[in-house]
Amino acid sequence: MKNMSDSSRIKVIPLGGLEQIGMNMTAFEYNDGIIVVDCGLSFPDDEMLGIDCVIPDITFLLENKDKVKGFVITHGHEDHIGALPYVLKEINVPIYATKLTMGIIEGKLSEHDLLSVVKRKVVKFGQSIHLGDFRIEFIRTNHSIADAAALAIHTPVGVIVHTGDFKVDYTPVFGDAINLCRFSELGKKGVLALMCDSTNVLRPGFTPSERKVGKTFDHIFSENTKSRIIIATFASNVDRVQQIINTACKYNRKVIVEGRSMVNIISVAREMDYLKIPDNTLISIEEMKNYTDDQLVLITTGSQGESMAALSRMAASIHRKVQIKPGDTIVFSSTPIPGNEKAVSKVINELYMKGANVIFNETHVSGHACQEEIKLMYSLIKPKYSIPVHGEYRHLMEHGKLAQSMGIPKKNVFLMESGDVLSIGKEDAKVVGKVPAGSVLVDGLGVGDVGNIVLRDRQNLAENGIIIVVLTLEKYTNQILAGPDIVTRGFVYVRESENLIENAKVVVTEALEECLSRRNADWGKIKMVVKDSLGEYIWKTMKRNPMILPIIMEVE
Amino acid sequence: MKNMSDSSRIKVIPLGGLEQIGMNMTAFEYNDGIIVVDCGLSFPDDEMLGIDCVIPDITFLLENKDKVKGFVITHGHEDHIGALPYVLKEINVPIYATKLTMGIIEGKLSEHDLLSVVKRKVVKFGQSIHLGDFRIEFIRTNHSIADAAALAIHTPVGVIVHTGDFKVDYTPVFGDAINLCRFSELGKKGVLALMCDSTNVLRPGFTPSERKVGKTFDHIFSENTKSRIIIATFASNVDRVQQIINTACKYNRKVIVEGRSMVNIISVAREMDYLKIPDNTLISIEEMKNYTDDQLVLITTGSQGESMAALSRMAASIHRKVQIKPGDTIVFSSTPIPGNEKAVSKVINELYMKGANVIFNETHVSGHACQEEIKLMYSLIKPKYSIPVHGEYRHLMEHGKLAQSMGIPKKNVFLMESGDVLSIGKEDAKVVGKVPAGSVLVDGLGVGDVGNIVLRDRQNLAENGIIIVVLTLEKYTNQILAGPDIVTRGFVYVRESENLIENAKVVVTEALEECLSRRNADWGKIKMVVKDSLGEYIWKTMKRNPMILPIIMEVE
Repeated sequence: MKNMSDSSRIKVIPLGGLEQIGMNMTAFEYNDGIIVVDCGLSFPDDEMLGIDCVIPDITFLLENKDKVKGFVITHGHEDHIGALPYVLKEINVPIYATKLTMGIIEGKLSEHDLLSVVKRKVVKFGQSIHLGDFRIEFIRTNHSIADAAALAIHTPVGVIVHTGDFKVDYTPVFGDAINLCRFSELGKKGVLALMCDSTNVLRPGFTPSERKVGKTFDHIFSENTKSRIIIATFASNVDRVQQIINTACKYNRKVIVEGRSMVNIISVAREMDYLKIPDNTLISIEEMKNYTDDQLVLITTGSQGESMAALSRMAASIHRKVQIKPGDTIVFSSTPIPGNEKAVSKVINELYMKGANVIFNETHVSGHACQEEIKLMYSLIKPKYSIPVHGEYRHLMEHGKLAQSMGIPKKNVFLMESGDVLSIGKEDAKVVGKVPAGSVLVDGLGVGDVGNIVLRDRQNLAENGIIIVVLTLEKYTNQILAGPDIVTRGFVYVRESENLIENAKVVVTEALEECLSRRNADWGKIKMVVKDSLGEYIWKTMKRNPMILPIIMEVE
Repeated sequence: MKNMSDSSRIKVIPLGGLEQIGMNMTAFEYNDGIIVVDCGLSFPDDEMLGIDCVIPDITFLLENKDKVKGFVITHGHEDHIGALPYVLKEINVPIYATKLTMGIIEGKLSEHDLLSVVKRKVVKFGQSIHLGDFRIEFIRTNHSIADAAALAIHTPVGVIVHTGDFKVDYTPVFGDAINLCRFSELGKKGVLALMCDSTNVLRPGFTPSERKVGKTFDHIFSENTKSRIIIATFASNVDRVQQIINTACKYNRKVIVEGRSMVNIISVAREMDYLKIPDNTLISIEEMKNYTDDQLVLITTGSQGESMAALSRMAASIHRKVQIKPGDTIVFSSTPIPGNEKAVSKVINELYMKGANVIFNETHVSGHACQEEIKLMYSLIKPKYSIPVHGEYRHLMEHGKLAQSMGIPKKNVFLMESGDVLSIGKEDAKVVGKVPAGSVLVDGLGVGDVGNIVLRDRQNLAENGIIIVVLTLEKYTNQILAGPDIVTRGFVYVRESENLIENAKVVVTEALEECLSRRNADWGKIKMVVKDSLGEYIWKTMKRNPMILPIIMEVE
């Protein structure tokens, strides 16, 4: 067998983020050291009924627990940090991140009672950390959250640049523009591989600067001087919040912050000086009544139509402290994430019905690089190998084509799946194997205890409901002592379908009697007879396929 | 009480199509006559678990059965004809429609064994039908299906124009352009009210001609001369199919039609001469093997990512006759309907993974009028009253603003809800009451037997699963003879959670024994104790809320 720790090669092992947008996590292995970049969650698909969130399968890390040196985090979004509390319970190694990112992580850890047990180190841009044979350098980028970093991972084999999520913003609201100069220096010295964000690779051109949104806010405030203004946006977009606050100050309005995640992030960002709020600007929701509409701005969660978020509750008239009224101006400073379009539409309709003026699709720019920005990265970094990351297959595929258009030979572009092990040497790179990878479902406190069988049952229950048939048999004689009783849930409204249930009982009883009269009727057979006879009857009369669950009790 | 049949007034009663896009149906009542325009279905929302389709509540029509003179249908789309088979079973009155529309309706009726019992009359453009005091004139429009009509409803009170779904296409693929001249004549004579399509009212400008898509097909065929071409589109878009066939002929390719609804509509349209297919152009799917890739075009269903449609099955490798292979060119000639974005993405990713070249978002134009076309209608028809139809509330609202910008006074614009009764006289119009209206859910053969309680149960089952607790008690003594047994579905995978179930049994047993030892333990109390004790235990240990269903059996 080949030597597993060949010191002339480095292994790149994505554990998530390649089949979808979300759940980003990549392991890098060299000799006896492993570092992990990002540790994100993803939100459940429609068919993952009842699931709260989804985290990557970390079997590979658990099997190599002693090698893992730490988690290096690019920025503070859920799809890059959300799995940390779950994963750290199994592998407690230090976390490295920039200041705001760490502030947000600390909030999460403290919710999970992990703050005191996990080691953390805040890293500055330009600074490097040493983990085993790795040196990891944090490089400033721009994104829809401040303090986003790209990583230059220096190894004895060469440098791998991981962009994290990024865009190029020459005029960011907070901090400096992306450090293109450093990427250029690295490119000049030679970069082995580039792992670059693919989220917006289907879009031509450049993503506009975040500042553009500020101008639109100014316009909206100047056009709606009489009305209360309510703005929904992503809690984590601190720069967006800063621009709303700037505009509010300019127009002499007080600011109310509503929605739990919004309140949390704003307080972290303000404490750390990422958000500058003049004194006497913020007021509490209780103080709102002391001001007239033209003196108020609400910043709220709910820009994705999430049913429990503050704006959705206001729209549905179930928010305890804010009532939408005619004349309110409501701004969605966001674009619906694919899958949320209908939920957002529903909230907009409800707001319209209350007489509000809704402004949609005008005050948002993306946080991800479009085609020309991605090309810029390739032209500066000039990598030998291209490994597109952060995207569905079609994004990775188009990214691959773009990389080729930038001069990377097709054989040097790697469209990987989660779990693929890419071994990179100075002379060549190839996928050499596969480690376990996939999705672990989180439902309440249960991590991984809901699998395919449970989901299939939930799907079946959701679409067809359940019919339960209970009967009590006498032991040895198999005589029916009680039942069959029929109970249904999610099937038909029983009061209107008494006949159906009565007839069903007759059908089952007849089938049972026939079956029990035979000598060799075991429980398996009896249950089968109940399922078959009732299933056939229901299909014939209603063309439906409910789950049928026979339960037999035995009395001596 | 006021005379209910005031012969100086007409009542307009929308029974659907005003809270959503879909389920279009409007009743017009004058003296003792009612006519109904359209009879559509809508597709279930995400929360309508297991529902096949949704039809309007027709209580109002049933209560006035003797007055109903007939259904007048504007065009052959599901949201305008889909509820006919269900409604005609309750109110059998004649149907009036243009030729292709009637052809599609007849297909539906024959599936429901109604063809021989329902009277039908095909109406030509320019022709009128007389129903009671109504004279209904069919006027040619353009839409994404041929033979779409607007209706001029002539009544003793005045003329009401209903546009149906429409766009303005000066160069349609089949038949003539919209009869703007006739709308102008009507406008000159005076129109009482305009009920106009709101679907695209949020979009500025004009919708391009269907012919534009033909040019793009030409370009795609000329660029992909070597590969097999597969095009997914809406089955009912006969003009689109015609353009694909024209392009196929130009490039000497044979055409295969795949997907049940596609095959059905193409055969109806061809029989009626709405579709011209040269001899030897169509081949069967079995003959495909006799041709090389560059000689073939497949036209298929599945442009919305519907899981059982032909293209989705090809993408998932479960189509029995077509395998996608590297080099295939696959064209989505459609835009995802809101809510279908993720399903479409999934299919595109699967196709990419098979090495296909996917062309998306290039070959579609809408069938609905944008803002400038809607303004054109107002400028020609010059109605006294505006009643925006076909849209969610935000569409109706914006349509109302547009109407005002065209000179309709605000008090003459009626933003109605389904069930509202608008009474229009020569001098004034006002909403005078409300009739029952809403959604009736169809699940299998059941129409209306799934209501809110059943849906709530399905939702709960879907998200949390069910725990069933069964026990057999001795009559009179209330002694436990068997159980409590615990069975779960959609909750946890039992083999991995045996401990949990065992512990739950202990918890329930203890609570039961305590309860049964008391003298006044009736079944209600026993069930409550099971629910409470188990519910608390599960929440405490797992933070989950499954449905808990106690079932008690009794043996003498």
